Amino acid sequence: MIDFSFRRTQGLEAGIDVARLSSMVGFISTSNVEAARRHGLVAAGTMAHSYIEAFPTEVEAFRAYAQDFPGRVTFLVDTYDTITGIKHAIATIKELGPTGRLGIRIDSGDLVALSRQARKMLDQAGLPHVRIVASGGLDEFSIDQLVRDGAKIDAFGVGTRMGVSADHPYLDTAYKLVCYEGRPVMKLSRGKVTAPGRKQVFRRLRPFGDLVGLHDEEVPPGRERLLEPVMIKGARQAARSGIAEANARFAADLEHLPAEAKEIHSPRPPLVRPTPALRAMTFETRRGLVARNRKAH
Amino acid sequence: MIDFSFRRTQGLEAGIDVARLSSMVGFISTSNVEAARRHGLVAAGTMAHSYIEAFPTEVEAFRAYAQDFPGRVTFLVDTYDTITGIKHAIATIKELGPTGRLGIRIDSGDLVALSRQARKMLDQAGLPHVRIVASGGLDEFSIDQLVRDGAKIDAFGVGTRMGVSADHPYLDTAYKLVCYEGRPVMKLSRGKVTAPGRKQVFRRLRPFGDLVGLHDEEVPPGRERLLEPVMIKGARQAARSGIAEANARFAADLEHLPAEAKEIHSPRPPLVRPTPALRAMTFETRRGLVARNRKAH
Repeated sequence: MIDFSFRRTQGLEAGIDVARLSSMVGFISTSNVEAARRHGLVAAGTMAHSYIEAFPTEVEAFRAYAQDFPGRVTFLVDTYDTITGIKHAIATIKELGPTGRLGIRIDSGDLVALSRQARKMLDQAGLPHVRIVASGGLDEFSIDQLVRDGAKIDAFGVGTRMGVSADHPYLDTAYKLVCYEGRPVMKLSRGKVTAPGRKQVFRRLRPFGDLVGLHDEEVPPGRERLLEPVMIKGARQAARSGIAEANARFAADLEHLPAEAKEIHSPRPPLVRPTPALRAMTFETRRGLVARNRKAH
Repeated sequence: MIDFSFRRTQGLEAGIDVARLSSMVGFISTSNVEAARRHGLVAAGTMAHSYIEAFPTEVEAFRAYAQDFPGRVTFLVDTYDTITGIKHAIATIKELGPTGRLGIRIDSGDLVALSRQARKMLDQAGLPHVRIVASGGLDEFSIDQLVRDGAKIDAFGVGTRMGVSADHPYLDTAYKLVCYEGRPVMKLSRGKVTAPGRKQVFRRLRPFGDLVGLHDEEVPPGRERLLEPVMIKGARQAARSGIAEANARFAADLEHLPAEAKEIHSPRPPLVRPTPALRAMTFETRRGLVARNRKAH
């Protein structure tokens, strides 16, 4: 998976963040060169259609690109006609013999049929090492379907739908005050009630599930604390973790999630329950608030 | 309409942009103080639930706020119980007599019933000048419905759904090369064919409609050119227009749009057609490209 989202993100800042975050969850490279520079990621150059259009013919564009970037060439083959484009890519590789990482990219049309045809053409030309990259409005659902349908695709460029989180464009969360001067506080607004007090999350791996409790509760048997202080009075409590470390943690966390939570279609999130102590504090805090506010008027 | 979107936008940069853009289309103020400072907008302070929770009682919070900001107070009344909150706001106003712009804000529950009840309570208390502000996951559809249902709301705070453009989280457009060294160029990718050549848009106001043609075509009778050079060789061609000017242009443009294009539900966009000259150039460019690319191989 390659991050192609920069031209769709909501501003430059969001584009840099998407490149970083996608690398944490396993994307191998990004088309965002500045994000790659800042965060030590692999920059995957994408040849633009406009590059090809700027030459009188596609073959001339392919030749120029292969001469300028012999170490890593991915020929974009669908500007005019995909099958002809694949022929032009093969001819250019045979003619110039670039020795770096080679690929072709298909950005439109029937990706299953075209990728199978491309694989056959490349193999028959003695180029089994040339990878096939697909792009064009892809998301987890279309990629899952392409794989099931037997597309011969080695890498997917994913842009728009990841970069703006198209199917979940916002996360309806907010910081809420839960404790002030040692006093647990909460909101009683209809449909927006919060739980008071400082929290801790107690995770059990098998069977998987989280308990949300108070920060000073004893750890229930078979569970571990998830929350730890990251910053105290402005001072970081541990070294900043790099992308490789974040990536490893993500992989481990993902591994522990139950299978039904990892389904692409209709995933079922694991159950999260409050501890009895948190329930009791919620009840008490609410009762105290209602009494005090009634009296105050 | 007040911009409340900052806490949901995809980064700080996007938050500043949303405040600016929403002011261009008629929003009267923003909760984003930095955007207001940068772009000369009205900053509308929003009292947070956490502010109220930080005091032992709601009444104490209201009193403190009214004393600190007597010039502009909007009491957030739904932290614990909305009707009680309205009573506390009325009591605080009567007690401290702030003379600035006064309002209450309802952020949850049945906004129609609560706003009608609030209006009645405020009027009966001799406070008809106290405005009612509503917020909480609002968008154009819910606001339209609230107005139809007779809610007594003077101003709406709109955040999440505007700040991330929730129902259209991305605009599927891109810069395309249409001309290179004086030669018209185009893309023939399946489903992504572009029209070649430098363009002009010719608008007719009545009946409303746009023609897209070539930049050097004569203006068809009854139409006007929409595109004009903004920058040439890095030099701005006219003074930067301010928000007031942009706002006036938006209002005028909106006025000219046909009614069916302005419907909130299922709007029908006006027809946009190519001119015969653009059609002819598209045909010729495609023919030339296909011939050249076939020959090249």
